[in-house]
Formats: sequence, structure tokens, C-alpha cells
Amino acid sequence: MKHVVIVGGGFAGLKAAKVFGNAKSDVKVTVIDKTNHHLFQPLLYQVATAGLSQSDISVPIRSILSSFKNISVLKGNAQGVDFTNNHLITDFGNVAFDYLILSCGVRHSYYDHPEWETMAPGLKTLEQASEIRRRILSAFEEAEKEADKSKQKKLLTFIIVGGGPTGVELAGAIGEMTRYTLGRDFRNIDPKLTRIILLEAGPRILSMFSASQSSRATRDLESLGVQVWTSSPVTSMDNGSITVGNERIETATVLWAAGVTATELNRKLGVPLNDQGRIIVEPDLSIKGHPNVFVAGDQACFFDKSNVPLPPLSPVAIKQGESIAKNILAEINGESRKPFHYKHLGTMATIGRSRAIADFGLFRVNGLFAWLLWLFVHIYFIAGFNNRFFVFLKWCIAYVTNKKGARIILKDSWRFYDDIDD
Amino acid sequence: MKHVVIVGGGFAGLKAAKVFGNAKSDVKVTVIDKTNHHLFQPLLYQVATAGLSQSDISVPIRSILSSFKNISVLKGNAQGVDFTNNHLITDFGNVAFDYLILSCGVRHSYYDHPEWETMAPGLKTLEQASEIRRRILSAFEEAEKEADKSKQKKLLTFIIVGGGPTGVELAGAIGEMTRYTLGRDFRNIDPKLTRIILLEAGPRILSMFSASQSSRATRDLESLGVQVWTSSPVTSMDNGSITVGNERIETATVLWAAGVTATELNRKLGVPLNDQGRIIVEPDLSIKGHPNVFVAGDQACFFDKSNVPLPPLSPVAIKQGESIAKNILAEINGESRKPFHYKHLGTMATIGRSRAIADFGLFRVNGLFAWLLWLFVHIYFIAGFNNRFFVFLKWCIAYVTNKKGARIILKDSWRFYDDIDD
Repeated sequence: MKHVVIVGGGFAGLKAAKVFGNAKSDVKVTVIDKTNHHLFQPLLYQVATAGLSQSDISVPIRSILSSFKNISVLKGNAQGVDFTNNHLITDFGNVAFDYLILSCGVRHSYYDHPEWETMAPGLKTLEQASEIRRRILSAFEEAEKEADKSKQKKLLTFIIVGGGPTGVELAGAIGEMTRYTLGRDFRNIDPKLTRIILLEAGPRILSMFSASQSSRATRDLESLGVQVWTSSPVTSMDNGSITVGNERIETATVLWAAGVTATELNRKLGVPLNDQGRIIVEPDLSIKGHPNVFVAGDQACFFDKSNVPLPPLSPVAIKQGESIAKNILAEINGESRKPFHYKHLGTMATIGRSRAIADFGLFRVNGLFAWLLWLFVHIYFIAGFNNRFFVFLKWCIAYVTNKKGARIILKDSWRFYDDIDD
Repeated sequence: MKHVVIVGGGFAGLKAAKVFGNAKSDVKVTVIDKTNHHLFQPLLYQVATAGLSQSDISVPIRSILSSFKNISVLKGNAQGVDFTNNHLITDFGNVAFDYLILSCGVRHSYYDHPEWETMAPGLKTLEQASEIRRRILSAFEEAEKEADKSKQKKLLTFIIVGGGPTGVELAGAIGEMTRYTLGRDFRNIDPKLTRIILLEAGPRILSMFSASQSSRATRDLESLGVQVWTSSPVTSMDNGSITVGNERIETATVLWAAGVTATELNRKLGVPLNDQGRIIVEPDLSIKGHPNVFVAGDQACFFDKSNVPLPPLSPVAIKQGESIAKNILAEINGESRKPFHYKHLGTMATIGRSRAIADFGLFRVNGLFAWLLWLFVHIYFIAGFNNRFFVFLKWCIAYVTNKKGARIILKDSWRFYDDIDD
């Protein structure tokens, strides 16, 4: 029986696993992931801004796949591939495979400044979302206690670096939280005076959209109290301030939504990578010279017909996972592989709780209608019935009451003896 | 205007604050808490066993009190009391008060073994509940990967120390999880073979109940796969095993639900404490010699008419908070204080998702009816409409589908660069 190993339980890996699970062929599948959960990353910014709980957007991988008896799920880290012997090297030993699917996603890049990470957390994992939430909410708590007005102003200044969809969504959600949700909860500060600055190195935010939609998004952000600074690359950062060219802003909270890079694994493989560290794949998504090893999702760099890399979006990942699984099944049955084709349906970004922009190629929509579309699409695709239902309910209630449901600050440590006298 | 400072936003502190908020008197109130949230502790074991999310049982204190304009909420640690100048000493400076209400609760006690804490986390905070959840779920993940049968057995052995309500609830919930929820999710292990041992130093569990109800609870636990070892005090512990007298059990997960002690604060005050470190209070809940300083909830030791200390239960804390606030208001209006009286209504403990025991003095109930009562009481008293509604829905769905909604393992650290190559 052929053994397929899938690394990563994101959109691509999960879709591939389900194709194998539903196929009647005799294939044994092992899914390996660093975490125990599939994460619905498009809504991660909602966890970071206290709109949703961690478990609203994540489901244990093994519970999603539990009905497929030919699939095992193991929690562990992939550390390399032994192409000669067809072994995946992991932290719990070597795993032999006939076919390997890599779908590990990407991580944040701080370019030449890895030391910025502790000052400016990124947003790729649930742990990071929790850390961002802790920092945002703690800044308000500290400001409420602060008598010194200039220190208070620093605590009430939030900088978001990167004007892509994640940065825009984060900035919009913080704007909304300060302008609406927190309004009446404080006595010594006025959350409505919070300064929120979105820094973008390029000439405009949301560069994958048209100039007019990008400018619409900028105006929408402004209406939520977010100031957009374009052509503003960060030059330096320390605990308490950020420098953009000759300008220096005092801030207690910097969030990072700029630039991604591939995982360490990619660099160890000795295979062709693009400048972001993604693995450049063949038309059938396999790695050149290693026809039984495939790459899918954000980890892969696939050039479309116009020689442009496909964007790092969940629909791309899902289609790639499906294509790879079908090709492997075809090959096992003695048929030939089909090259991967992708038809791009559209791109969306949301700004706060009633505005969005969407580009479907042939037509574009903005405002409330685009937001309702965004809401529908995202609730529809959330994995697992429980979550979909709860997220919808939570959003309805949040919309009506203007309260954030998950505004809980958790400490880093769980031990009592750590905080005696602190 | 008189200034009342309340330390602790638990059941007692919150009730006192609400009484002041609703009174038409001219009183300024400051609530100080180490965390930003009120925690519904009776359901904490559900967070630890992945039945509920953290935000289901916690609400920001400032959002509960936001409508009371005379109340401010500050996040900070109380470190001492300057009785001479009527100052509360905190980590953000001194706070002057006319009246002080201490309601800080208690922490776990490891008796003479504080080093046991890292090996056996207790269950008093959301952070601890998350840590316990991480340990329980990770043990199953590790066991699934383990080829060595004796190591696997060690990973699938859970020891709960302490046969009070928390220990019984934890053990029952783990029993249920292993016997029902996790059943089909693993390939290399059978979660139904998990060994769960509840250790109690005394002659029986749930000693506040009658011998017959205690024995009923023991049988209920057994039906969920939990073995109850009475007269079994822990003599030593290391990473990987626990020793009870001459017997030694190999285990990867020990949970602590035995014994509490007062916070460090109490020892600094120089006031009369009982042997658990609780502050012995006067009939009006004030501290002897300091009539403007009151203690409520688990932090207080109040002797009832039969000279027995009141139990550390939320109804006691709520009534005490109310009594103190009313006495302070009376005194401000020139009236005299009334001594505190408490009428005990009953005690409940739940074992899994369809059994409980309840003792209402005049009558006792067991089984499903007691469990439904328990469910009703707990949902009814959860603070905040949102949460009550969601918790009820989550439980309904969990009951029908037998799935745990929050089975997410989060890492201790949020940084990417920590786990390169680990």
C-alpha cells in the first residue's frame, strides 16, 4: 500500500487529506503538523482584536479527519527531507513515504532585523494573535493608570506596519474597538483619542487592488480614526518608539504585518527557491528532479500562464491540495498526471464591521455589500459546523451590542510563584 | 466624598461594587484587580478539560461596571496596607482610601513543597486552566507517536491530587473525555484505556457531603474510568512519577487540587490569620482594630454561630460583599452597622455530564436531576448575557455531539524564532 505523508494541516494539506480519505483507493496517509489544530487564518485578526476566541477559528486536525480510517495525524515538526531514501526527517524520527506533500505555509519576515520580533509581533499563529490582544488591551489598562500625559499618549499610540490585507484589517478593527467598543469603559482616558497609524513602504495600501479601491479603503480607514502613511518604510525600532525616515513616533505597541518568508525547512532542501524563499514548483506542483515530492499553498511558488506567481490565498491552497491528491491517485491507478490550472475568482479585504472592498475581475464592489459578501464567504468556509454557527452568532451579538466578546488579558505564565510581589 | 477601594473583582468585590454603583449616595469607588477579568471559577475545570473557551467564563471587570460612573477599575497588584495613613500600597503607587474591602481570594498550597508546582499545576486562574488543557491534550499527542508501550502507558496515566469538588470535577471530565470524546480520533492508542487516578489524603472524597453521597460520587467516577484512592497522601513527586507511601506510579500528568493558602498580602498585614492564612474577621467582616478595612470571600475566615468557618463558596462571597457595602453606606448615612448573617442553601458537585450530587440540608438529590439543577444554577449565575447564552448553546451542542469544542493546544511562547529546529 502506498504511503502519502502530508506536512501541514492548513487549507492545502487538509484538502489533500480529504481527497485521499474519500477515495476508495488503498492509500495510507499520515498528516504531520506542528500544532494540533487547523487554523482559519483569514479571521486571525479577529482573535487579535478580541472579537473572536481562539477556538472559534480553529479545530483539531484529528477531529476533522477522524472518520477516515486510513489517515493518521501526528503532532511534530518536519526538519528535512532525505530525498535518496524517501524519508521525512522529523523531531520524532524518520518517516518513510512514497509520496510527500509539503504544505507548511510561511512565517513573518523582519528582513534584516530579526530582533524586531519581540517589539513588533506578527500575526500567523493563535499564540501570536493572543500576544497582540494582550498588548493592545494592556496598553489601555496602563494608560488608565498613567498620570503623565505624554506617557499616556505613547500608550495610546498603535502602529501597524504593512498595508496589505492583514495590516488593513488589524488597523480597522483597532479603530473600531477604540471608537465604539471601549468608549464608556474608562474614566481617566478617552479611547476615542487613540492614535492609530498604518505604515506602508509602497506608494499605496492594498496594492493588489486597483488604485481607486485602494483609495476607497484609505478613506474608510480614516473614518475609523486610522491614519495611513504611505511611502513610509520603517528604518528603526526600539522599545517605545519607531523611526520612519527622519520622523520618530513614541509608541508602546507596534504590530507587524509586512513581509513573509519561507520556513527554515525550505532552505535545507537544496531545491530552487524564489526571492521570498518559496519553493518553485513544476506545472504539476512537484519539485524539479523529485517527482514524488509536491508543494502546495503559500510554501509553493507556482507561475501562472502570464508567468506571475499565484497569490498566497486560501482558494489557491485548496485547489493545489486537491490537484496534487488527484494526481497521486491517478498515478497509483496507472494514469498520467494533469498540470495544475487555477482560475482566480476574486480578492476581498474588510475594513471594520460594515465596509469592505472586493475585486472579481469583471466587476468590483465596495462598502456594505462587499462586507456582507465577505461575511458570507468567511462564515461559509470556516471548518466545522460548531464553529461556523458560533462565529455567526457571536458576530450578530457583537454587531448589535458593540461589545467585544473576548477582551480577556492572559498572562504569559501560569505559575503563582512567578508573580509574588510583582 | 468618601472613597472606597475594593481589591479583587471576584464574586465578593463585584457584588460590593454593584451595591455602591446602584446606591444613590455620593461614594467614589475604585476596583483594583491583578487581571482585567471577573472569572466564573466554578466552571474553570471545563476550560481545563476543553469543554469551554477562556472567554466563555470570564468578562472584563470594567465592562461589567462601565455603566456606573462613580466606579473606576484599575489593573494592578495590591502589595500591602498602610493602616496608619489609610493607604493601599500597589505596584502603581499608593491609593488613599476611606474604606478598604479586601477580596483577593486564595491560591493553591503545596504545603512544604512549592517545587511541586511546575510538576502539578493547580486550577485557580485562566492561565492555569490553559496549562492543564495543554498538558492533558499533549499527553495524548505524545502517546500517539510513542512506540514504546511502557512510555505510552505513562503518557496515558493522569493523576489528580485532592478529592474535593475541583478534583472530582476534573477527574470526571477527563474520564468522560477519554471514554467518549476522544474515542475515534487516534490510530495507535485507545484513549479508553487511559488510567485516571484520584488521590485523596483523607478517608473519603467530597468530605463536606454525607458518607452515602460521597460513596455515590465514588461509584459515579468509577463508571467513567476513574479510580479513587483514599487515605493516599502524596509523599513525593518528580518529573515522571508520583509516590504515595510505598507505591510509585509512572505518570506524565499530575494535576493539583489539594489545599489552598492565602495570598502573600495577608502575611504582610500583621492581622490575625487562621491556619490556612485567611484573615479572621469580626462579626461585621471588618479586621479587628481596623474598623474601616473589611475582608470578604475566600480571603476571610468568618466563624458562624456554631463557631465553624464558613465554606469558601461563591454564595458566601456574594453575600459578604453585599453586607460590607451596605454597612459602609449605612455608616456614611449616620446609621449603625449590622453583623453579617449567612444562611447556607446547599452544596453541589458534578461528576461528568449527567451526574451530580447536591445537599440542601433538609433533602439531598443525586444523579441526573442533581446534574440538571447544577447546570441551571451555573448557567444562571454566569456573569454577562453573552456568555450565559453561549455557554448554554455550547453545552447543548457538546451534549448532543459528544465533541469537545475547545481542544486547541497553544504553545507557551508566541515567537517564531523560538521554535526553529525544535
